Amino acid sequence: MTIHLSELSRTTGVPVPSIKYYLRERLLPSGVPTGRTRARYDESHVRRLRLIRALREVGDLPIEAIRRVTAALDDPDLSLHQVLGVAHHALAPPPPPEDPPELVEVEALLGRLGWRVSAGAPAKRGLAAALASLRSIGDDVDAGIFLRHAEAVGPLAELEIASLPVDEGPDRAVERAVVGTVVFDAALRALRLLAQEHHSATRLGPQAEDAT
Amino acid sequence: MTIHLSELSRTTGVPVPSIKYYLRERLLPSGVPTGRTRARYDESHVRRLRLIRALREVGDLPIEAIRRVTAALDDPDLSLHQVLGVAHHALAPPPPPEDPPELVEVEALLGRLGWRVSAGAPAKRGLAAALASLRSIGDDVDAGIFLRHAEAVGPLAELEIASLPVDEGPDRAVERAVVGTVVFDAALRALRLLAQEHHSATRLGPQAEDAT
Repeated sequence: MTIHLSELSRTTGVPVPSIKYYLRERLLPSGVPTGRTRARYDESHVRRLRLIRALREVGDLPIEAIRRVTAALDDPDLSLHQVLGVAHHALAPPPPPEDPPELVEVEALLGRLGWRVSAGAPAKRGLAAALASLRSIGDDVDAGIFLRHAEAVGPLAELEIASLPVDEGPDRAVERAVVGTVVFDAALRALRLLAQEHHSATRLGPQAEDAT
Repeated sequence: MTIHLSELSRTTGVPVPSIKYYLRERLLPSGVPTGRTRARYDESHVRRLRLIRALREVGDLPIEAIRRVTAALDDPDLSLHQVLGVAHHALAPPPPPEDPPELVEVEALLGRLGWRVSAGAPAKRGLAAALASLRSIGDDVDAGIFLRHAEAVGPLAELEIASLPVDEGPDRAVERAVVGTVVFDAALRALRLLAQEHHSATRLGPQAEDAT
């Protein structure tokens, strides 16, 4: 399949000016020229545009972060795992400027869980910051407070990685990983609030004793 | 214990101008006047200021949302469950202007889980929006996709509600609930990213076969 720019726009739902912008910014590889101002595109451009749209609209990533992801995808020396790492790091909130002292405890927790994680993973700093927040309001807790939460999300993450469509090419696998990470984050947040409301009604509501 | 404004500021770490602002805005009840421009404050003011600080700094809530929470706390007709509901609703992302069609499926999922949740809970709309996102990228899924995630966070939420310090007064219980909701949200997000990285390394990394 090869198509012109207007068809590429129709197929993907991405407006022509946006496609031209992604071409200029090299997020999207050039097509094969068919004239002075025309080129033809193929399935790989459709997949890449779907990925860019997912990173922008679902992942809410800035162009610079999207560029890091597409550059990793186009680097033949990187494995899919390494590309996913770039995408995951782009999705994590920016880490604090200095390593929090709680980072040592987070490393110990990860060791206890047997999780192998790269040294620079921003999520480690995010977890350390969460521990610091609990202490700042006077809670006498250690990183073990997160063990139960880790055991709850570990199997979910394992299933998510196992169900990535790796046979459909790296663009598609990264799109699924990013969308899954963002959408199920929102879903987990919503579900936790709903479960809290249910258990609050059961335990603390005006008719708590009728709730069984 | 009764203290003056300057001591209230020292005890809570909240600057005097902020305390005066909260007093003007009626987030903090007035003290007992001891002169034309002086008043004395007590433990209840310390607890309320701690709560306001947690809602602002950890919950990142705007003043209007904090006002709804403190007004609920000061309403003698509301149970602790109802006050927690106000706080949880303040923490949920603002719902879309119209009910998404997926809301019906979310209600069915909640019925299947046996979770009793108020009709207006914004988190229901958040979950419906997550389902709509998955469909928008071409996933042929129903609300059952979230069942496993619900079963993972349900016991965490139950434990969180059960461990609220209800004997220490409603201000303290609401502070704990809000801080717990926000901090453990961040922790769950970080832990899920770390677990994904671990399982991605094990399954997709360059030395995947050495990973056992």
